[in-house]
Amino acid sequence: MANDLGPNEELIGLPGSRRRLMTPALVLDLDAFEGNLTSMARLCREAGLALRPHGKTHKCSTIAQRQIAAGAVGVCCATLREAAAMVAAGAPGVHISSPVVDPRKIDRLIELDRSARRLSVVSDNPANAQDLAAAARQAGQRLDIVVDFDIGLGRTGTATVEDAMALVARVRTSDNLRFAGVQAYSGRVQHIEAYRARAEAYGAQLDRLEQLLDALKRADIVPPVVTGGGTGTFGIDRERMTVTEHQAGSYIFMDVEYGRVQLLPDHMSPFATALTMMCTVVSANAAGFVTIDGGFKCFATDGPPPELSAGVPPGARYERFGDEHGKLVFGQSNDRLAIGAKVELITPHCDPTVNLHDYYHCVRGDTLVDIWPIDGRGSL
Amino acid sequence: MANDLGPNEELIGLPGSRRRLMTPALVLDLDAFEGNLTSMARLCREAGLALRPHGKTHKCSTIAQRQIAAGAVGVCCATLREAAAMVAAGAPGVHISSPVVDPRKIDRLIELDRSARRLSVVSDNPANAQDLAAAARQAGQRLDIVVDFDIGLGRTGTATVEDAMALVARVRTSDNLRFAGVQAYSGRVQHIEAYRARAEAYGAQLDRLEQLLDALKRADIVPPVVTGGGTGTFGIDRERMTVTEHQAGSYIFMDVEYGRVQLLPDHMSPFATALTMMCTVVSANAAGFVTIDGGFKCFATDGPPPELSAGVPPGARYERFGDEHGKLVFGQSNDRLAIGAKVELITPHCDPTVNLHDYYHCVRGDTLVDIWPIDGRGSL
Repeated sequence: MANDLGPNEELIGLPGSRRRLMTPALVLDLDAFEGNLTSMARLCREAGLALRPHGKTHKCSTIAQRQIAAGAVGVCCATLREAAAMVAAGAPGVHISSPVVDPRKIDRLIELDRSARRLSVVSDNPANAQDLAAAARQAGQRLDIVVDFDIGLGRTGTATVEDAMALVARVRTSDNLRFAGVQAYSGRVQHIEAYRARAEAYGAQLDRLEQLLDALKRADIVPPVVTGGGTGTFGIDRERMTVTEHQAGSYIFMDVEYGRVQLLPDHMSPFATALTMMCTVVSANAAGFVTIDGGFKCFATDGPPPELSAGVPPGARYERFGDEHGKLVFGQSNDRLAIGAKVELITPHCDPTVNLHDYYHCVRGDTLVDIWPIDGRGSL
Repeated sequence: MANDLGPNEELIGLPGSRRRLMTPALVLDLDAFEGNLTSMARLCREAGLALRPHGKTHKCSTIAQRQIAAGAVGVCCATLREAAAMVAAGAPGVHISSPVVDPRKIDRLIELDRSARRLSVVSDNPANAQDLAAAARQAGQRLDIVVDFDIGLGRTGTATVEDAMALVARVRTSDNLRFAGVQAYSGRVQHIEAYRARAEAYGAQLDRLEQLLDALKRADIVPPVVTGGGTGTFGIDRERMTVTEHQAGSYIFMDVEYGRVQLLPDHMSPFATALTMMCTVVSANAAGFVTIDGGFKCFATDGPPPELSAGVPPGARYERFGDEHGKLVFGQSNDRLAIGAKVELITPHCDPTVNLHDYYHCVRGDTLVDIWPIDGRGSL
């Protein structure tokens, strides 16, 4: 389905087409999206921070190209499929932020590296570094390695400063690897809502990263980049300047969770909600609620449910109602919506929600103006 | 990506390829799958119950064809995309079990009906029936309508016997609609684990359905089919014989939730786990756990987490660990798994898990023997 633009292509350019979309349909408000691109570019430029936004949020080479056109130095990827989509689209500076350990995946990585305009990959393990070096040697290539360092999440990354330094040394002494920098990411703190509480929790983790940077300095090793951070820590990373390059992803869309997080010390958020889901009322035979066509296969369920945005009476809320359906419960008993009515919802956790869909339906006001395929979709 | 077979195609036929799959990869054990097909066919035949299994579980035209070859009368679909995949593959008896209300979707439905070998769709609303009739009239077609009746879930369906009878009458008097039967489905009771408790809860709902069937009988109307039921109620539907045709879906795969449900009155389950997820250990730097490459984008999160199946020390368990990762926590502190190790997990809620993936990797024992695209994937 990646070659076509789906069943809504025929609506492109038609006035009022936003509310005629076949649903459920991811809607990207281009004015808000471009505002987010511009705000982030300005905030990074002012701080002297490079931006390599995370493509796991959008999985879309068109969006990566927009980010790069707005000043990003490249794009981060979590999977080889994302990276393949970005490389195929000619994106420079593709960084794979999760370890690639499977031998067949390593072969694919080496293939991608050959056609990429600069590609880097993390490693957090000497055996993995050895496998990467062996594959690069066999292909006659030199692979850029970013040493992943665990600052508190425990998910990936070398566990101690000593382990990280040993891995850096191993990478630097391999003829087929190039030491491209250090990565440190902490997913757990991103959604702490109050700025100061988040700054305190994340600050202790950045202290840990600084211990590694001190050890590198003492060894006269300058990491080409120190990369990390997410939308939730962006304000703090901008104050602390421990990382030199930022990986924020969700800022382009925002979602229900990030809508509750105070992102900067002095105000709530420099970013606006740009991503919504258009749904349709498909059944309306009950008192007090209607059924819409968005359920577990449309909205991520790992966090809070979607919030209602447009087309609904005030006080209404979404409740989960199965694989293909959502329940729209009215605040007032005499509220009504007829079958066929379109309702628009702010997406829950945007990354896994996007992964359920195939297209962004790009709108200006009420008009569908473009459709962008989610060409890096999937978990493989 | 529906035209190719993905990055594991090159492994087809190679001995030991099951554990060389690029991951995360849905694995379909064909021996168990075919056993489930045979068991269900036998159980339905013995009871005199027709089987129109639900394709929302697998979203795969190849699986629908296997079900039909094993005796199913057709396939149910929840979305137009599923239905389009089934019709394109030549499957007979496609029944769309959720209302189609959007005018552009109705146009697509009429188009599908033209090329289908028998297609039916539910309706639960007179305005919707009128829209369907108008579209069928314009196309010079006659559309098979199954009147949906709510027996307790409240999600879709006419709300009362009177509303259902009025809709039946409206369908029967329309030149472009044909009354094809009655549907009643109750998602809520499917996962009640104890057979008798489930039989009691569902029994009250079947009583409601029988009120409608009595009213039809009094009006001398014979519904061509009475369709409904799920894997959880199959044993009860087989005892009660209120429905004439069954929509069970998950029986072909089974999953963590259905593994806990007593499916028949006299024994736990006639069906075996046929669907698993192969994952790879990608980071192993912490004491007591490792990180695997299956997270929110790989496993559905609306129910319990996946259960570990093969490749792991006893007592280990899966914990959620973000979008792309899972945490495999060991039961014994000295247990270990190295990076690159393959682990296999029983899928959580199978329908929304399948929807995250693009292919079934079909195995016989340890060998990948085929790959089936999930050609009806998506929520649109």
